[in-house]
Amino acid sequence: MITISERGIQMPASPIRKLVPYAEAAKQRGVTVYHLNIGQPDIQTPPAIIQAVKDFDMPVLEYSHSAGNESYRRKLVDYYQRTGIVVSHEQIMITTGGSEAILFAFFACLNPGDEVIIPEPFYANYNGFACTAGIKVVPIPSSIETGFALPPVAGFEKVITDKTKAILICNPNNPTGYLYSKEEVTALGAICKKHQLYLFSDEAYREFRYSDREYISPFQLPGLEENVILLDTISKRYSACGARIGALVTKNKAVYAAALKFAQARLSPPGLAQLLGEAAVDLPADYFDATKVEYQSRRDLLVSRLNAMEGVFCPNPGGAFYAMARLPIDDCDQFCQWLLSSFTYNNQTVMLAPATGFYATPGLGKNGVRLAYVLNRESISAAMDCLEQALKEYPGKAR
Amino acid sequence: MITISERGIQMPASPIRKLVPYAEAAKQRGVTVYHLNIGQPDIQTPPAIIQAVKDFDMPVLEYSHSAGNESYRRKLVDYYQRTGIVVSHEQIMITTGGSEAILFAFFACLNPGDEVIIPEPFYANYNGFACTAGIKVVPIPSSIETGFALPPVAGFEKVITDKTKAILICNPNNPTGYLYSKEEVTALGAICKKHQLYLFSDEAYREFRYSDREYISPFQLPGLEENVILLDTISKRYSACGARIGALVTKNKAVYAAALKFAQARLSPPGLAQLLGEAAVDLPADYFDATKVEYQSRRDLLVSRLNAMEGVFCPNPGGAFYAMARLPIDDCDQFCQWLLSSFTYNNQTVMLAPATGFYATPGLGKNGVRLAYVLNRESISAAMDCLEQALKEYPGKAR
Ligand SMILES: Cc1ncc(COP(=O)(O)O)c(C=O)c1O
Ligand SMILES: Cc1ncc(COP(=O)(O)O)c(C=O)c1O
Repeated sequence: MITISERGIQMPASPIRKLVPYAEAAKQRGVTVYHLNIGQPDIQTPPAIIQAVKDFDMPVLEYSHSAGNESYRRKLVDYYQRTGIVVSHEQIMITTGGSEAILFAFFACLNPGDEVIIPEPFYANYNGFACTAGIKVVPIPSSIETGFALPPVAGFEKVITDKTKAILICNPNNPTGYLYSKEEVTALGAICKKHQLYLFSDEAYREFRYSDREYISPFQLPGLEENVILLDTISKRYSACGARIGALVTKNKAVYAAALKFAQARLSPPGLAQLLGEAAVDLPADYFDATKVEYQSRRDLLVSRLNAMEGVFCPNPGGAFYAMARLPIDDCDQFCQWLLSSFTYNNQTVMLAPATGFYATPGLGKNGVRLAYVLNRESISAAMDCLEQALKEYPGKAR
Repeated sequence: MITISERGIQMPASPIRKLVPYAEAAKQRGVTVYHLNIGQPDIQTPPAIIQAVKDFDMPVLEYSHSAGNESYRRKLVDYYQRTGIVVSHEQIMITTGGSEAILFAFFACLNPGDEVIIPEPFYANYNGFACTAGIKVVPIPSSIETGFALPPVAGFEKVITDKTKAILICNPNNPTGYLYSKEEVTALGAICKKHQLYLFSDEAYREFRYSDREYISPFQLPGLEENVILLDTISKRYSACGARIGALVTKNKAVYAAALKFAQARLSPPGLAQLLGEAAVDLPADYFDATKVEYQSRRDLLVSRLNAMEGVFCPNPGGAFYAMARLPIDDCDQFCQWLLSSFTYNNQTVMLAPATGFYATPGLGKNGVRLAYVLNRESISAAMDCLEQALKEYPGKAR
């Protein structure tokens, strides 16, 4: 009998995807659905970086270097320099999205059966990449009460086994929006140093920070050159999700060399999109300012609207473009489905991401949702009107 | 101690890469190096398909559907129809190059430890993908004497174990250029049917056929709908290697669903390049004619020059743009290195791919090289002059 693989069966399907047919059915019925469920920014892709692709004038669209065009990697050295990260172009590998950088890090650093500790809630696709690589995610809970701050060091040490090879953090965080402090990053570095663990630092949202809190990357920690693997992407930074350009950055030569072998097998990262990535490094220094002002004003609106609703709690996130809220509901999967299938307010409704999808520990996140503020203020406001009304009508109250 | 993974260590590095520094050093010395070593076509990328990217005018470069844009997949239905392959757009998944299609097939169909049988010599990166997926390649030798025809059915049956899950063929073949006959494809289908194995069909070179031999894809075999996974790419077809667009095509719903979960984890295939791929389907029906005439005339030149050299044998390949030749040498890895480091003819030399890199069985391929005819006739001619002279001078004769 022809059967699919075990990993094909175990590979998680995103809980949001289960909601998609309900959202489509709602639209069929003529209902306006506000999509606060996914991290697809609505900010315009800078025309200058699209233009760089349009300027392509080589006769043949060739494979690039497996680590990405050298000209692009050399440019990125400047970009990182500006953010306080000192690297050479030989420590940068261009990947097909941040997604591939995560996969390469898992493949190069962990054996099947090895463990990576990740504070939960966490970006749901880490589960998929772990399943692909045959490794185990060991979650350690962060709490909404502390705004999803880094769990205490003791919490990490409790779950470290001889299978533990790495800790993975995302800073600023998806899904919580939490921005780790310098102290937290330093503490994390100390754990990794002490136990000789890799520190995978997913910095997809690096530029999206709305607080004066001093920010550092684990890459800046002294003495951790062999431990830190920076996982990066231009998807959110430049609203260029469809480009599929990311980067794996490390000073660890053995890891770089191993990752490069995986990169060579798949030949090269996308060629046209590398032109776009390279041009992005030349965007004016104030490029992020307007974007940040926009996101911050959306966040302020969203968070204040949420906290004004009865029984709702939403910590104020310091970065990214997500917020996690606790709602007075019994089951977020059912609630999010109900919003799409059984509720409207002025013929509108809202699509949210159930928090359960971001937890690995069964039972956690049941009364939470993640909201991505990737719509303009007017839409966010209308979406909040819907949510406020929905919470009044929803039969499944928190117990 | 921070250590890289076992798979990071075992991951093969291509033998061609070892030669790269020697080629660079030769160029430093002012030597002209003819690159017959890699499958990077020199044929112009059709300007019309580049234009499709230049016409991009959406405000945001968004993630596409994880299976690729529906409009593109619907177009591909027509493309496949024209080649005699009947599929629906829901059976087509756009991937990041054919490379990712191969990986998804391995991940979705095989468990770690499972085996895939591949006639050798074979495309070297299959080893890397197998290592990534933790599966085992079981080679079965094809012979230069028969022009690398499909090994007899008995040869396959001898190596089938309860771990065997699939047979993989590449048709027309890289590295041999062999074009399987309808009878061979049918025989292969029968083995897969009898033993309930997947039949992975890598058709990267589908259009590059230079014989009147009737051509069929395993996809056209009746009764094998659950078994066949077509692995495809636009890299060679349209000289668009840098685009990174391929496809996994199957009627097996469970495999498609499993592969889609891997596709969803990595979000989407390259967006701009999908526009290029979609436009390629609209190229005029005679687009391949000129390209094929060009490749065929190069092949004719290359093969006749090779066979005219003393002690050299090169079967006439029916497709792709590769030929495998047996040379009167003792060790192809040393010979190829010697060509770059110790030999010149009129201040020129040639870079070839040692055949050993395409064999999994140790010791095989020692007196072979693969030549990719991706240069124009003039360059091929000059390269053959070099090779002819080199074989006269090379000290390591065949024993
Ligand atoms: C935390 C985080 N890491 C990585 C990614 C991967 O993004 P991409 O593959 O588009 O670079 C995402 C995308 O949403 C993300 O939120
Ligand atoms: C036989 C074969 N399959 C697959 C590929 C992968 O190509 P790509 O990832 O560019 O589609 C190649 C590239 O050389 C190849 O020769």
